[in-house]
Amino acid sequence: MAVAEVNFLSESLKKIVPFYAVIPMEQRKKDGNTERFRTLYLLHGYSGNYTDWLFNTRIQQLADWYRVAVIMPSGDNSFYTDNGPKEEHYSTFLTKELPAFTRALFPLSSKREDTLIGGFSMGGYGAFLNGFKHPEVFGSVIALSSAFIVNRVLSLSEGEYDKIESYSFYQSVFGDLSKLRGGECDAGAVAEKLILSGQPVPKLYFACGTEDELIGPNRAMRDRLKKLGADFIYEEGPGEHDWKFWDCHIEHALEALLGKAKR
Amino acid sequence: MAVAEVNFLSESLKKIVPFYAVIPMEQRKKDGNTERFRTLYLLHGYSGNYTDWLFNTRIQQLADWYRVAVIMPSGDNSFYTDNGPKEEHYSTFLTKELPAFTRALFPLSSKREDTLIGGFSMGGYGAFLNGFKHPEVFGSVIALSSAFIVNRVLSLSEGEYDKIESYSFYQSVFGDLSKLRGGECDAGAVAEKLILSGQPVPKLYFACGTEDELIGPNRAMRDRLKKLGADFIYEEGPGEHDWKFWDCHIEHALEALLGKAKR
Amino acid sequence: MAVAEVNFLSESLKKIVPFYAVIPMEQRKKDGNTERFRTLYLLHGYSGNYTDWLFNTRIQQLADWYRVAVIMPSGDNSFYTDNGPKEEHYSTFLTKELPAFTRALFPLSSKREDTLIGGFSMGGYGAFLNGFKHPEVFGSVIALSSAFIVNRVLSLSEGEYDKIESYSFYQSVFGDLSKLRGGECDAGAVAEKLILSGQPVPKLYFACGTEDELIGPNRAMRDRLKKLGADFIYEEGPGEHDWKFWDCHIEHALEALLGKAKR
Amino acid sequence: MAVAEVNFLSESLKKIVPFYAVIPMEQRKKDGNTERFRTLYLLHGYSGNYTDWLFNTRIQQLADWYRVAVIMPSGDNSFYTDNGPKEEHYSTFLTKELPAFTRALFPLSSKREDTLIGGFSMGGYGAFLNGFKHPEVFGSVIALSSAFIVNRVLSLSEGEYDKIESYSFYQSVFGDLSKLRGGECDAGAVAEKLILSGQPVPKLYFACGTEDELIGPNRAMRDRLKKLGADFIYEEGPGEHDWKFWDCHIEHALEALLGKAKR
Repeated sequence: MAVAEVNFLSESLKKIVPFYAVIPMEQRKKDGNTERFRTLYLLHGYSGNYTDWLFNTRIQQLADWYRVAVIMPSGDNSFYTDNGPKEEHYSTFLTKELPAFTRALFPLSSKREDTLIGGFSMGGYGAFLNGFKHPEVFGSVIALSSAFIVNRVLSLSEGEYDKIESYSFYQSVFGDLSKLRGGECDAGAVAEKLILSGQPVPKLYFACGTEDELIGPNRAMRDRLKKLGADFIYEEGPGEHDWKFWDCHIEHALEALLGKAKR
Repeated sequence: MAVAEVNFLSESLKKIVPFYAVIPMEQRKKDGNTERFRTLYLLHGYSGNYTDWLFNTRIQQLADWYRVAVIMPSGDNSFYTDNGPKEEHYSTFLTKELPAFTRALFPLSSKREDTLIGGFSMGGYGAFLNGFKHPEVFGSVIALSSAFIVNRVLSLSEGEYDKIESYSFYQSVFGDLSKLRGGECDAGAVAEKLILSGQPVPKLYFACGTEDELIGPNRAMRDRLKKLGADFIYEEGPGEHDWKFWDCHIEHALEALLGKAKR
Repeated sequence: MAVAEVNFLSESLKKIVPFYAVIPMEQRKKDGNTERFRTLYLLHGYSGNYTDWLFNTRIQQLADWYRVAVIMPSGDNSFYTDNGPKEEHYSTFLTKELPAFTRALFPLSSKREDTLIGGFSMGGYGAFLNGFKHPEVFGSVIALSSAFIVNRVLSLSEGEYDKIESYSFYQSVFGDLSKLRGGECDAGAVAEKLILSGQPVPKLYFACGTEDELIGPNRAMRDRLKKLGADFIYEEGPGEHDWKFWDCHIEHALEALLGKAKR
Repeated sequence: MAVAEVNFLSESLKKIVPFYAVIPMEQRKKDGNTERFRTLYLLHGYSGNYTDWLFNTRIQQLADWYRVAVIMPSGDNSFYTDNGPKEEHYSTFLTKELPAFTRALFPLSSKREDTLIGGFSMGGYGAFLNGFKHPEVFGSVIALSSAFIVNRVLSLSEGEYDKIESYSFYQSVFGDLSKLRGGECDAGAVAEKLILSGQPVPKLYFACGTEDELIGPNRAMRDRLKKLGADFIYEEGPGEHDWKFWDCHIEHALEALLGKAKR
């Protein structure tokens, strides 16, 4: 296992940014496998940063067991869109620059079937949105307790707040809110468009805890995808919006998408 | 010497943020001094982050020699103002939250005469602006190769770019640009107001390289302060907008403001 | 929460050494508590280092819930004794230098009743040994899946190996093996001596998984302490020599020693 | 530039160890060069660790200018020999495991002419010793202010100390001192043997400050190599045993060995 804390100058974000990388070097050596690693780009939630997954879950161990490299960047409360008002392009960062940079730095596969994107809460939204926006990059999407909040955001008037943020905040990350529904930042719409297009669609695992406030929007997304005839795995289980749920379900997701762990 | 890379959840920035701290524990022990440390909050420039000063200068050694703790946060291209569009408040962070947090975590003095703020380029601007905005917090300001760019920014029209950024970027960090001149984000105006008020003013060291494009605006600031009858140290020397100049002049600044180094 | 990766020059180890510190700043602020933190010095096992507990368990979260600072140093396969052949003094480091240094750097309590030492495997041995050796420093000991291997080591002849290491390795960390039994590096003997002395004894929580090879020596220690009439908590449970057991039982230990978690 | 702090489990050292890597990704991209990087393995001195070069010199910038990856491990006061008493094999680590590991993790060249080893003080000794011991791995050696202390060590009797360490310490890193002269840990003898063998010899740059106590042994080494007819660059200059000298002369060395910097 190599755990690396990396800083580099991002062009899309116009600043030096840190990320953590977990690369299961030793395990692979044992297997006698020298192919480039399949890779999970793994996103944190609102108010978190690149340290969250490593410091709060068993992701290091799971990377080992499932023979998957994991790259964990900071999202800076951007919802992983390109609309950032300082002209920071988090979507471009995630879907182009970071894959290219990490594949140049580490021995990572560039095949779509070897490339996963995942996250929880704001990061679940970001993984879902960017995964379906760039199916040529990502073969699989993992979306845990995802903040499918488009309806909630659209119910806000200027000056109002929901439990997390303000109308003006959401405007700054999603752009002109009058164009949010059905637009490039609307995760559900982006997925729907792809599915209806008949193009290859990423495999999808998503999950939400039954005690999580976000259970409603997650069930709505499940129903929407079902109606579209999409293929996906959806799990519900007892649980809240917390690390216990994400630690447990990131393992379920890896098992579902990558097959049984080798310990 | 303790070098600490710290992550914590900032309320003003609404996210977990990293900073580096350099605390000259051993040297002080040798001196038999057990008072709380004088402290320099030290800011990086545009496109940098919290690692810049530590990785590119001798700041660790200077902290040792000058017996000063150094705290180096990330500025995320904010120019260290409160106007951030995602309602990130970098000025509040720097002048209230970060001092309070670091003084609760480490043995740092909370006296204004023990508290310095410094930086280069965008960070020089941020140090100058926030130091003069909060003279009750900061007793000294160090501004190297400072991006005194208010005039340059105000010469832009919507849609235009200067060498670094766009009109709309500057709007996002400085707020409504029609109110920039003379307002809360105009470093020169903030200093002028304080000086004219007759209230205690931070000691000021500022410097610029003669080969630096920013030499003009720095000389203009020197002249403006001279006219106001302000007390300050201004240095020019051969040099460009680079680490060599900052490594050299941060030492000059510490010598000028804190007295001779003890090695 | 502050998570800090710290490097400093240790006198006992004669080199710059890293450690992780987790300090539950925010939670305490919520509680309105400004006393110095109770602190757990937490040790990794053979072949690990200072990153192990943070990267593999929920220790960050537990520190938060139990309002306890956690300091995690590197042990460099020393078994946390002073016998290191390069005249590295890990026991002195752990019981004197590190507490003094971290209390000077962070707001940590220096009361014995606020100070815990814990670890797993080699670190469980180190915590048990050093806790009972310095009851004036440590009020509580947590020893998980402890490598109580004195008998195993003493059954080796020169040139032989057990599953982990060689006779000569053990000699280098425990010193002259003919003096190990009953000496300063014999954890059981050190505890026995303290208990029989009538002096204050640290509270003790220890535990081992029933599938762990070390279950035998742990039960033997339990029986030995029972015979001495000592007061302690011993837990067994299904489990192996792995992170799952330590993640679970470090929480049991904190609950047993510090009372119910506040979330 | 990518700056990476990496932890991995070393077989030769039997523990998880940290190192810093500096990889000039962006610069190379600008040059349009996609070959694997030439690489400098760069060693710290007695009482230092893997953070020393990065935190105290401009090595990040020099890596950029000279288009060379730099790998900085911890040496744990081992003098980078295999004799460590806990059966830690620092020489094997440096000359086999670390090159193999870093070349598997990062895009580094495995050609000897692209591979340098360097260091200062104890690290200068380690670079010189291991570079000449493994000319099949290293095409160049940089040895700054090197601790060529074999004579000094051999003048000690059991129980005695020189300014740094004890007879018994030196025994623990160099092995049986009666066999040190001319043996596998005697840097000068190892170099002499290689030179006399007629096999390819690494290019050598070495330097010492005229105010450094180690100037004598460095001049002696210069004279010894001259007598052997060896090819090398030796520099003396005003300077002490400090970071100023190493920061300056690591640049001289890179210029001498790699050619002019591209900024």
